[in-house]
Amino acid sequence: MHPTPSVTNPNRTKKEFYDDLLDEVKAFVDGQRFWVTNLANVAALIYHGLHSLEEHRNKPVNWAGFYVTDPTNDQKLILGPFQGKVACTEILFGKGVCGAAAVSQETQVVKNVHEFPSHIACDSASNSEIVVPLVLPSGKLIGVIDIDCEELEGFNDDDKVGLEAVAKVIIDSCDWW
Amino acid sequence: MHPTPSVTNPNRTKKEFYDDLLDEVKAFVDGQRFWVTNLANVAALIYHGLHSLEEHRNKPVNWAGFYVTDPTNDQKLILGPFQGKVACTEILFGKGVCGAAAVSQETQVVKNVHEFPSHIACDSASNSEIVVPLVLPSGKLIGVIDIDCEELEGFNDDDKVGLEAVAKVIIDSCDWW
Repeated sequence: MHPTPSVTNPNRTKKEFYDDLLDEVKAFVDGQRFWVTNLANVAALIYHGLHSLEEHRNKPVNWAGFYVTDPTNDQKLILGPFQGKVACTEILFGKGVCGAAAVSQETQVVKNVHEFPSHIACDSASNSEIVVPLVLPSGKLIGVIDIDCEELEGFNDDDKVGLEAVAKVIIDSCDWW
Repeated sequence: MHPTPSVTNPNRTKKEFYDDLLDEVKAFVDGQRFWVTNLANVAALIYHGLHSLEEHRNKPVNWAGFYVTDPTNDQKLILGPFQGKVACTEILFGKGVCGAAAVSQETQVVKNVHEFPSHIACDSASNSEIVVPLVLPSGKLIGVIDIDCEELEGFNDDDKVGLEAVAKVIIDSCDWW
């Protein structure tokens, strides 16, 4: 029904990986505007894509998914579709890395989550994290992309640039509440 | 924020596993009524729980998650939260194992999906499948639990009984559209 991601060269650079990922994301959201469906598949593309990279063999990604702004409380994030172990269901704006991204509307690349003020240890296996805000053209924060790594310094500026491009496609591809 | 599933004895029987799973599901949905959040965590509990079992070591579960009735078309299922590789986004009522469960509102335990009429091969790795309907007290089908196994005969009546109990908790624990 949909193309299976075909590019699985484990030695791609992060930049090459994100170029491929962006094409895959565009293919998967094409013709589908239900936000739950699109976020569920994009979480799988990100998680399994990063797992396929040699660069992450020694830096395993243990969680990739979404928190969305609670439709009934615009100062709270609630858990959306993800890949990985069970996760915290609610995060207040301003709390932890996700909450910081929600308030600042700026991507957070955190090399060591244990040094981050008010870090929320949903999974004790996580040591570094990247969180990318999803912001509507109106300026409203609709949610965040959240990815955890079991090692320190799992993510860098290449992830930031690549995921911000994915975020833009996600924002445009879905009908939001 | 939430209890981490603590029972990880790999030699539990399926019946013991589902008794534990039901307790975990109840704990995770407690105080949370947003359906996306609850389905996302329950998919993770089912997927990683089944993976922890010795009984599934040689029968790997490769996909566990949800399809929900399209809020804009009550004859179509659309992809909800899941664990596993990217999946088909839409399934018409009556099509494949999920579509059969949607129409009949009866659990489908399929020992060999390749022998099932109109089987949809979302993932060529899948060889057996169980699909459990989520039905509101009004009789409306809200969605299905869908689990795939890489080997034949991955699921039996113990899975049916266990997952039907989980389905009942899910139905009662969420606000639906």
